[in-house]
Amino acid sequence: MPGQPHVMSCIGIPGIPIIQQGDNLADIISQAIREAGETLRNHDVVVVAQKIVSKAEGRLVHLQNVHPSPRAVALAHQAAKDPRLVELILRESNEILRVRPGLIIVEHRLGFVCANAGIDHSNVLGDEDHVLLLPEDPDHSAQALRRAWMKDFGLNHLAVIINDSHGRAWRLGTVGVAIGLAGMHPLTDRRGDPDLMGRTLQATVIGTADEIAAAASAVMGQADEAIPVVIVRGARYEPGEGRLRDLLRPKALDLFR
Amino acid sequence: MPGQPHVMSCIGIPGIPIIQQGDNLADIISQAIREAGETLRNHDVVVVAQKIVSKAEGRLVHLQNVHPSPRAVALAHQAAKDPRLVELILRESNEILRVRPGLIIVEHRLGFVCANAGIDHSNVLGDEDHVLLLPEDPDHSAQALRRAWMKDFGLNHLAVIINDSHGRAWRLGTVGVAIGLAGMHPLTDRRGDPDLMGRTLQATVIGTADEIAAAASAVMGQADEAIPVVIVRGARYEPGEGRLRDLLRPKALDLFR
Repeated sequence: MPGQPHVMSCIGIPGIPIIQQGDNLADIISQAIREAGETLRNHDVVVVAQKIVSKAEGRLVHLQNVHPSPRAVALAHQAAKDPRLVELILRESNEILRVRPGLIIVEHRLGFVCANAGIDHSNVLGDEDHVLLLPEDPDHSAQALRRAWMKDFGLNHLAVIINDSHGRAWRLGTVGVAIGLAGMHPLTDRRGDPDLMGRTLQATVIGTADEIAAAASAVMGQADEAIPVVIVRGARYEPGEGRLRDLLRPKALDLFR
Repeated sequence: MPGQPHVMSCIGIPGIPIIQQGDNLADIISQAIREAGETLRNHDVVVVAQKIVSKAEGRLVHLQNVHPSPRAVALAHQAAKDPRLVELILRESNEILRVRPGLIIVEHRLGFVCANAGIDHSNVLGDEDHVLLLPEDPDHSAQALRRAWMKDFGLNHLAVIINDSHGRAWRLGTVGVAIGLAGMHPLTDRRGDPDLMGRTLQATVIGTADEIAAAASAVMGQADEAIPVVIVRGARYEPGEGRLRDLLRPKALDLFR
């Protein structure tokens, strides 16, 4: 007797308006979910694009108000970038790892390695002078959304991921990754579990939150449709109080800095 | 009038038996798809775990038959690994990038950077002496599966991805990535498209095949259930004659070797 297919559904929510500073993001998304004929259920993972979280939190910066330091001016020359943008990249970073024209790879103050400190220059206000920083504390943002939705939809359990698109060192193209999360452990540790043949697995820790973030990102698309929220239903993950930090390789184990 | 949700479904196919060398993988999977009450439709992406492709292709090696070179013996000492396994890692690699106890990071002969040349030591035969190499030519394997299924299910269009789980330089946990593909362009290039505000996007190339591979990997799980095949339905991608190579960053642009 064959089993049933195991289905994970990634449900992109349309109809979310352009978000402004101070907007109640949880309420706006709740409404869009209901207007799309959807709801949230226990054990769903709601993946929210960083961009709308940042906008709601007022992380938009007008470059006119940024005064670059001498260090930013020098680095901007090396990277062929606007010195004011580079000043913001420096402020948002713990460390500069690599520089080439058009690209500055940093350790972000949140701990992950990414390009240009995740500062978004597109989709912002339709002009070249505004840029969008990442949320101040994406784990905290995720937790706030999670609490609001659990109450609103009457749930016992929900997970929330804030995702962004990151490049990779050795592969082309960006993929969605988690930059903040709540209600789940981002890793699934199968070390010590028996494998299919009864032998102990040796090195299998799965980046579950990043796989779910990537799945959602495949639905979000970019630019020609505004789908900044995806409900992932049927994903296998471990509920709990995880944090972004759990996903980051400790510097001492980093072979590539 | 709000739009409909945009849904991407990842349908894990149960009931696939343990695969042996010489098995007709396309037929076995077709049968499992039908027995699960599913089918394949135009524009589906079928994601197949590397492991079953390798097994069908006879990529299982008994370590007893491997005679390590002096170079393998020296590297095995440095990496605290079986010299015979290290011999296979060397044979499967273009270049060794990093070594620490338990880990050898290589450029695989297929061109991607990965740990231990992707040689799988678990889920193989229930003993410690067999290891599984990656498929000889995963693009070719994907194309063969694609052709068989298009005929079998009477389709005009289908994409196939062979995925594997890779670690990342700066993040913990493995994520699914494409190591072979057919019927799609693995990248979606949105440079030059207008964004939501009418401004031109500058640097958005999306690693679509890897996002789909990761989504499928989230369904495959590991070890406690055997779901080596996932149908991804509703994904947005560009049909065409893509190759794994399209996904790999050219060495000249690599800042992290």
